[in-house]
Amino acid sequence: MELKVIAYARNGHTDKFGIPRQSRDESPILTRIVFEPEYRVPEALRGIEGFSHLWILWGFNTTDWSPTVRPPRLGGNKRMGVFATRSPYRPNPIGMSSVKLVGVANGQTANGEKGLELIVSGADVMDGTPIYDIKPYLSYSDSHEDAKNGFAEETKDYHLLITYYSPTNHLLEVLPEDVRKDIEYILSQDPRPAYQDDPEREYKMDYSGYRVTFTVDKGVVCVQNIEKSENNLHN
Amino acid sequence: MELKVIAYARNGHTDKFGIPRQSRDESPILTRIVFEPEYRVPEALRGIEGFSHLWILWGFNTTDWSPTVRPPRLGGNKRMGVFATRSPYRPNPIGMSSVKLVGVANGQTANGEKGLELIVSGADVMDGTPIYDIKPYLSYSDSHEDAKNGFAEETKDYHLLITYYSPTNHLLEVLPEDVRKDIEYILSQDPRPAYQDDPEREYKMDYSGYRVTFTVDKGVVCVQNIEKSENNLHN
Repeated sequence: MELKVIAYARNGHTDKFGIPRQSRDESPILTRIVFEPEYRVPEALRGIEGFSHLWILWGFNTTDWSPTVRPPRLGGNKRMGVFATRSPYRPNPIGMSSVKLVGVANGQTANGEKGLELIVSGADVMDGTPIYDIKPYLSYSDSHEDAKNGFAEETKDYHLLITYYSPTNHLLEVLPEDVRKDIEYILSQDPRPAYQDDPEREYKMDYSGYRVTFTVDKGVVCVQNIEKSENNLHN
Repeated sequence: MELKVIAYARNGHTDKFGIPRQSRDESPILTRIVFEPEYRVPEALRGIEGFSHLWILWGFNTTDWSPTVRPPRLGGNKRMGVFATRSPYRPNPIGMSSVKLVGVANGQTANGEKGLELIVSGADVMDGTPIYDIKPYLSYSDSHEDAKNGFAEETKDYHLLITYYSPTNHLLEVLPEDVRKDIEYILSQDPRPAYQDDPEREYKMDYSGYRVTFTVDKGVVCVQNIEKSENNLHN
C-alpha cells in the first residue's frame, strides 16, 4: 500500500534536537496541520470541533528498521525490541501522537489560495513532518489510564528544572512569552542525547527562530544564552 | 511511502458482519498477530511483556476516500467529516486499535517453520487483516480519560441485552464456553447495519466456525439458532 501525504506539520521545531520524545497533554507547543491542496476540503473536518483530542499519524524520516533499539530513556545502553518501543527504526516508519485540538483555520496560502489547517498542541513532531491521517480520539476505546508501561514506566514523571545564567536575564525580555514557555517545556523534558551527563557540555537548540545555549548539571538546566537564529520557520 | 505487511491477524471474525466497531477493554475476543517470515524475529519483541496494552496499526479493505461519511452510530442518516470519524473511507486506509496483550507464542507454522505471534484481546479487526505496526501503549502519552468524544459521546455505553429462543437452549451445550462469550459480546455491541430496526428481520453471522441467527427487538437480541458453519477459520 502506498501512503499519501494529506498535510504537513508546521511548528517551531526547525531543529531535530529538542523535539519531545512523546506527545503530552501538558506541552504548550502549537503545531499547525496544513492540508495539501487535494485535501483542503472543509467538509472532511465536519464535526471535529466536538473532540478535545485527535490522533495524528505521521512519517518518520528513517528508511531502515532494526529488530532491537536503544531507548534514550534507558540511558542508551540497553537494547529493547523495536515493537516494545516507539523508536522510529520500524518496518513501517509511521509515528502516532495524540494531540489536543486547539482550532480549525481557513486561512490563505502564500499564493493566495484558500488554505485549511488544524491547530493542535502537544505534538512531538518536527516542522515539515508529513501527515498521513487524522482521527478523533475516543476515550472509551483509546484511554487506558492504568495501562502498565513496561520499561518506560519510570520515565513517566522525569523532568529537569530550568534556571537562567543571570547575565542572560535581559534576553528573556525580548523573547515572546509563548516562545519562552515552549522552550522551558522542551528543556524540562531533557533533550540531551541518551547517555550524556557532562555538566560542562554546552548544547545548542534552534526553536522558533531562536538559538538556545544551555548546560545541564544534576537535573537542573542552566540557559546560558538565547539569540536570534538563522534557522527560520518555514511557511 | 510503501507499507510492508509485518503480520496478519487471525481470529474468529471470518465474516465482516459482527466485527465490533471499536476496540474495547471489555471485549473477550482473542486475536493472534502472526508475523510474516521476514519479521519472525523474537528479539524484536524483547521487553514487550511489561506492557499491558499495545497499539496495532492495520489495513482497511477500502481503496477510495470520501470527505464525508455516515457514522453507523448516528443511524446512518447524518454526514460527518471523515477526519471526525474512524470510518475506513480515509485517504490512507489505516486503522489503529489499542488491544490488551495476552501473551507471546513461539509456535510452529503449518509447514514446520518456527512461527512467532502475539496474542491480544479486544481488537476490532477481521480474520486475515494485514498488520503494519505494533507499538507499546504509553499511558502518560496516550491516555486521556476525560477527552471529549464529540458526536460519538452518546454511543459510549450503548449495548443490547441477550436472550435465547428457548428451543435453542440445547445448542448452547455444544457451543464452547469461550465462543459463547465472544458471540454474546459481539451481539451486545449491536452488529446490525445502521438504520435497521425491524424486529421481524433475521440476521445471520458467522463467528469461529458457527453460524448464529438472531433478531433484535427493543434493545434485546434473541438468538434464534446456532449451527456449525462452513465458513471455517483460516490458519
